Amino acid sequence: MMPSFVDILEYIGTFAFAISGIRLASRKDFDIFGAYVVGIATAIGGGTIRDLLLDTTPFWLMKSCYLVWSAIALFFVIIFKKHLIRLNNTFFIFDTIGLALFTVVGIEKTMMMETHYPFWVAIIMGAITGAAGGVIRDILINEIPLIFRKEIYALACVIGGLFYYIGLQIFDNLIIVQIISAASVFLTRLIAVAFHVGLPHIKNLEHDIKS
Amino acid sequence: MMPSFVDILEYIGTFAFAISGIRLASRKDFDIFGAYVVGIATAIGGGTIRDLLLDTTPFWLMKSCYLVWSAIALFFVIIFKKHLIRLNNTFFIFDTIGLALFTVVGIEKTMMMETHYPFWVAIIMGAITGAAGGVIRDILINEIPLIFRKEIYALACVIGGLFYYIGLQIFDNLIIVQIISAASVFLTRLIAVAFHVGLPHIKNLEHDIKS
Amino acid sequence: MMPSFVDILEYIGTFAFAISGIRLASRKDFDIFGAYVVGIATAIGGGTIRDLLLDTTPFWLMKSCYLVWSAIALFFVIIFKKHLIRLNNTFFIFDTIGLALFTVVGIEKTMMMETHYPFWVAIIMGAITGAAGGVIRDILINEIPLIFRKEIYALACVIGGLFYYIGLQIFDNLIIVQIISAASVFLTRLIAVAFHVGLPHIKNLEHDIKS
Repeated sequence: MMPSFVDILEYIGTFAFAISGIRLASRKDFDIFGAYVVGIATAIGGGTIRDLLLDTTPFWLMKSCYLVWSAIALFFVIIFKKHLIRLNNTFFIFDTIGLALFTVVGIEKTMMMETHYPFWVAIIMGAITGAAGGVIRDILINEIPLIFRKEIYALACVIGGLFYYIGLQIFDNLIIVQIISAASVFLTRLIAVAFHVGLPHIKNLEHDIKS
Repeated sequence: MMPSFVDILEYIGTFAFAISGIRLASRKDFDIFGAYVVGIATAIGGGTIRDLLLDTTPFWLMKSCYLVWSAIALFFVIIFKKHLIRLNNTFFIFDTIGLALFTVVGIEKTMMMETHYPFWVAIIMGAITGAAGGVIRDILINEIPLIFRKEIYALACVIGGLFYYIGLQIFDNLIIVQIISAASVFLTRLIAVAFHVGLPHIKNLEHDIKS
Repeated sequence: MMPSFVDILEYIGTFAFAISGIRLASRKDFDIFGAYVVGIATAIGGGTIRDLLLDTTPFWLMKSCYLVWSAIALFFVIIFKKHLIRLNNTFFIFDTIGLALFTVVGIEKTMMMETHYPFWVAIIMGAITGAAGGVIRDILINEIPLIFRKEIYALACVIGGLFYYIGLQIFDNLIIVQIISAASVFLTRLIAVAFHVGLPHIKNLEHDIKS
């Protein structure tokens, strides 16, 4: 059975997310099995939280390919470890494809649930699907989640959700809506990183809070 | 539709919990979206874990008001950031109201489940509803959970659960039971902070444990 | 009602896992309630994640004995705190018994679910049941998860899962299969620690990754 175009994009996203988890775990001196676990958690963590919240079977329990792609990512890092820096831009593109696609997948899975959720729930589930894996990764390697401090990341998923909603009002063709939504995530993130666009931080905050 | 008195208390609790998450995230240099996410996680995290354990739809997927109150908390922190220290006592009271109310909400939601749980499960769910949000907050900002080290916090929720149980044996009126339980949480926490009452720590522990 | 032999092993495992959580939390200056919570989370965390993923009621909501054994572990640490180092080898054996038994319990619970999962899911659930509690413990005490960096740990659970599968093909008697699987976990871990066998780490990784 040939994988569809969307399947291929999903594998690319899984691969890229797993790579980012494996690389960061390795820098923290995790062994290869630990790095593999962090890679898996990065790749499937967001979708797992979404599925638990929606009370549906976690997607990766149905198909082993997500663990297989994470394993391929592990071997890839082991073999090409010295040459990965040169591929940073490629990984960034892959990672952003994954972010965009996972967001759309999260939105659509929410809309297809028997429970009829309002659309803001779908937007949140899209953002969780896209961005929560990176948060779990950073918790596992004991770092402050990167995505909340640097260039726009999770907000790109929310923007993709809004574009999905707008697209639904205008177009009859669901594929067009999907492309608009995914493209808006992709471009938001691309522009944010290219021009170092981050959100403002709340500065001048008092320094002696006692919880 | 007018919100009930309990609704209003719940909004106050959500607001106060979100404020604490947003302030601590801001001190760790999270951007405003990251601070908002930490604020939301602090406010709804405990109830979400409770609902996942009880296998029921997470409460905040049904009503958008929890995200709205967290957003109001975000704007509040941004606007009044320089003046928040002076409000510390007010926030503490709000936070303690939230703790007390969330505990009671957690107990009652557990008792109303179709599965008939023993009462100790309800006590634990009350404590998780009240205290787990703060633990999630501290994990996200990469700090050791504060509530396990300083003045009595999670234990106040357990005490509230015990008072709920005792109240149930004595009074017919559920509202009286709720008030007794919430008041016991509130007063335990208030007294603990006012007099710096903490639980004992296990000292003199060996220093070369290898897990 | 007399507890069965497997019940007794499960209590030993719960006790040993709780001890490890309580000791590490105490070293981080948690108060006794916080240490108790970390002990519980270490003992029941893996099985809870498994049950959430399998969409079944968390096992410890049905029987209070897991919280009771964690409380016994707490009193044990408080009373014998100065003498625990001498018991390190005993704890290690207990911990390894727990790891082996929890793995088998996780595999069998997965196979008994109404949803018919492929066996690789059972292997993963066995590993999660055995090893995820230790990861949750390390997240709560704000340390990089130990099990991903030192002697073989989670991989021992996977090996136990493979032996379970092989045993199923050869033997008709389920008890023999259980013993083979548990023994393979136990021996793998024992040998790994005795001879300091760890998995390789991915070294020479570039040092300027930007996520």
